[in-house]
Amino acid sequence: MITSTTNPQPADFADVRATNLAVVLRFVREHAPCSRADIAASTGLNKATVSSLVADLIDRRLVRETGLTENRVGRPATMLVLDGSPYAAIGVEINVDYVTAVAVDLSGERLLSWRRSFSGATSSVSQAVVAVAGLVRRVTNRMAKEERQVLGVTVGVPGLVGTDGTVLIAPNLGWRDADLAGDLTKALRDPGFGVQIDNDANLAALAEHRFGPQAGAANLVYLTGEIGVGAGIILDGRLRRGARGYGGEIGHIQLDPLGAECRCGRLGCLEAVAGIGAVLQHAALSPAEVEIEIEEVVRLARSGERRTLDLLAAVGHNLGKGVSVIANLLNPEVVILGGYYVPLAPWLLPAVGEEMRGRTIAPDGGGCRVVASTLGYGAAALGGAARVLDTVDSGRLPRPS
Amino acid sequence: MITSTTNPQPADFADVRATNLAVVLRFVREHAPCSRADIAASTGLNKATVSSLVADLIDRRLVRETGLTENRVGRPATMLVLDGSPYAAIGVEINVDYVTAVAVDLSGERLLSWRRSFSGATSSVSQAVVAVAGLVRRVTNRMAKEERQVLGVTVGVPGLVGTDGTVLIAPNLGWRDADLAGDLTKALRDPGFGVQIDNDANLAALAEHRFGPQAGAANLVYLTGEIGVGAGIILDGRLRRGARGYGGEIGHIQLDPLGAECRCGRLGCLEAVAGIGAVLQHAALSPAEVEIEIEEVVRLARSGERRTLDLLAAVGHNLGKGVSVIANLLNPEVVILGGYYVPLAPWLLPAVGEEMRGRTIAPDGGGCRVVASTLGYGAAALGGAARVLDTVDSGRLPRPS
Repeated sequence: MITSTTNPQPADFADVRATNLAVVLRFVREHAPCSRADIAASTGLNKATVSSLVADLIDRRLVRETGLTENRVGRPATMLVLDGSPYAAIGVEINVDYVTAVAVDLSGERLLSWRRSFSGATSSVSQAVVAVAGLVRRVTNRMAKEERQVLGVTVGVPGLVGTDGTVLIAPNLGWRDADLAGDLTKALRDPGFGVQIDNDANLAALAEHRFGPQAGAANLVYLTGEIGVGAGIILDGRLRRGARGYGGEIGHIQLDPLGAECRCGRLGCLEAVAGIGAVLQHAALSPAEVEIEIEEVVRLARSGERRTLDLLAAVGHNLGKGVSVIANLLNPEVVILGGYYVPLAPWLLPAVGEEMRGRTIAPDGGGCRVVASTLGYGAAALGGAARVLDTVDSGRLPRPS
Repeated sequence: MITSTTNPQPADFADVRATNLAVVLRFVREHAPCSRADIAASTGLNKATVSSLVADLIDRRLVRETGLTENRVGRPATMLVLDGSPYAAIGVEINVDYVTAVAVDLSGERLLSWRRSFSGATSSVSQAVVAVAGLVRRVTNRMAKEERQVLGVTVGVPGLVGTDGTVLIAPNLGWRDADLAGDLTKALRDPGFGVQIDNDANLAALAEHRFGPQAGAANLVYLTGEIGVGAGIILDGRLRRGARGYGGEIGHIQLDPLGAECRCGRLGCLEAVAGIGAVLQHAALSPAEVEIEIEEVVRLARSGERRTLDLLAAVGHNLGKGVSVIANLLNPEVVILGGYYVPLAPWLLPAVGEEMRGRTIAPDGGGCRVVASTLGYGAAALGGAARVLDTVDSGRLPRPS
């Protein structure tokens, strides 16, 4: 078989210069300030190549020179740091009662974090598109005033999102087969940057992996703690979405065939026995009411109320069964509990850890720790911005201006 | 922070020439016969670099030139194919009643496949080391006669194997904390090639991914079908072992808190309700007796015996519950059933597929298919050889002789 040059290139054999630009950019991100010689020494690229790559990155204003620094040995060298001041990466999260937008610069510095109320449960896809496009336009206007070029936008949605960005099902929003990426791009009138859609748990995992206290962990699972429970799975340093992007659906794994009835109609799903709904006294609450009731649960738990403590322990044990499935199958360093699990963590975590370790075949849970997220409710939006930065880091660089 | 040249290189910034050699080698593997110009066009490497890399690969006898071929356009070009005739990759599987060895050449052509009976259940680690070293020596002697250089050996073990190659626990062999890699290397008297240890399900997954009919699938899960059940998980084209190498332990995921008692003491583990033991009439059989009894089950099922058909359907439904956990969490293209599941597949698969699709949130099981392995009982040993080839493909090339 003879490969002709007109065939699409297999991803594996992507353009070597773009790859090397990305290698240098990531090196500067991790080791700045550093010299061209440092880069050459650590990457194996020869010095002339490094100089040419660095010149390119400086042209694109991704990297800039700082003053000379005296090396411990040898001549003083010009040091390089990440620039990125002329750029912004935007993340958006659509949820049942709000839309959040976050913008960060290339080094991950947060530029803005906005939240707008939004009645997701009763809005159509086109209404959501109008709302999100409006918010994104305001963010890009702000970035334009700061003379920043927008690198891209990623929008997080609670639902099944295909690798092509189609929202297959978003049960809490009542959406099916929505081409959100296409609709948003149109509403933004071909804005000159990419618009990507992703699952909210995936994005929260990306945020933890890039910005959270567990950022060093190559194998990390994030669990959303809402009425629904989803997982974002990072293995060997990358998000793993599966063949069509539908991975991470832990919410309807059956923990107990005789357990409480789930919204899906089956019995004993993780969501039904270990989701936030299992902590609440009242079903079918509005999101605002959920927030208030969780505050009440925290108050009761703090006061040592027996029934609440027992309930939280029971939910924690159920959640631990779910986490043991992750620990046995995937052996991550850490499982991070997000959403409403965070305020409840002091009472959930002991039970979760005990149950998980007891059910994991490898001793001590295979080293898996369970912790509460520290990124707050904006984790998915922040992860949207992280996904944009990931795209840059993996070699899709902005053109020199 | 200034990185000095004496620091170990982060894996991410590995030597660029080695990486590019590997890129060219993989290209030739996938596209041979191909010309230097084809490689340059598809990889983005310039022609001078490609010529130099190809010369290096020819020196190492990994690639060779064939005759000139008339291109459809332009001058005739010298075509390149994989050589590898001077090399062999060896895989070994230790099981409770046999040791298997397989050798393949660089292109994956099978050179030999040997099986020796071995009483794994009653042998100590050091007895196993003697037996395996003896078998490996006979294989390497045979390879030496064929003037092949051994690229490496990987030994598969049914148990928890750490990323450092330590066997933490192998319950059916009665081993704990065995430094099998170190002991084997010593017994082989520093053989000049690497000895790696891996979990048997991991290796079988590698074999399927490289040699099986599902080789195109980037997301593939292999389930061993023995008294114990383990999973080998390939996502985005690579085996995912988790933080310490203990991933894939699906056997003790609890499917039913009131289910049959498991060897581990808990109730309703996947192994207890969907492992091969659930199909047998007698517990605690020797491996030879298991084989005979499975043959009897197949005979009864073929004859349409009602009780056997019901039993297989029940086990299939339970297995489908387990597979739905994989489909929901990981969304693979395919789950491959190995071991004794293979002869039972005609009766198991309908129930497995139905149950899996019914329990997976994404429609149609997220596109996940369930199939029986076609690689036979030697899958793990073949996967051991595949792992050695993976090491070469990822850039650890043999030195020019």
